[in-house]
Amino acid sequence: MKAIVRVALKKTVLDPQGRTISAALNSQGYAAVRDVRQGKYFEIDLADGLDRAAAGAQVHKIASDVLANPVIEEFAVEIRD
Amino acid sequence: MKAIVRVALKKTVLDPQGRTISAALNSQGYAAVRDVRQGKYFEIDLADGLDRAAAGAQVHKIASDVLANPVIEEFAVEIRD
Repeated sequence: MKAIVRVALKKTVLDPQGRTISAALNSQGYAAVRDVRQGKYFEIDLADGLDRAAAGAQVHKIASDVLANPVIEEFAVEIRD
Repeated sequence: MKAIVRVALKKTVLDPQGRTISAALNSQGYAAVRDVRQGKYFEIDLADGLDRAAAGAQVHKIASDVLANPVIEEFAVEIRD
């Protein structure tokens, strides 16, 4: 069983790295790009035999305790079989 | 229209950062974690009026030219309305 965790700065927090990428893309001719936000992405391989709900709860705890800084970042967890 | 691009090291490339996170989680008692791979994640806000196929093609080009290093990294593009 796999879990995908995406961590990104909250929408209300300025993301200078994303801004820079967006400006760079615009200057390279990608005019359709209006904004870019960058974040981290974790693919967690979990032991088999965990049920989906338990896996979700555990990964949620891992994300909020270890992978993300809840003060300035938000995260999303997705469980895949 | 939004595009999500996930960039991660190829499966054949050692990911020391992911290994470290995995070991740290195990030592904190998360025994169900077998492996972690870390990558980058970009949320690209695109201008309205692009059709889905054109947006996909453009973001695919952005990902392979700018966001990822195709020698050691692989990427996945997802278009959302």
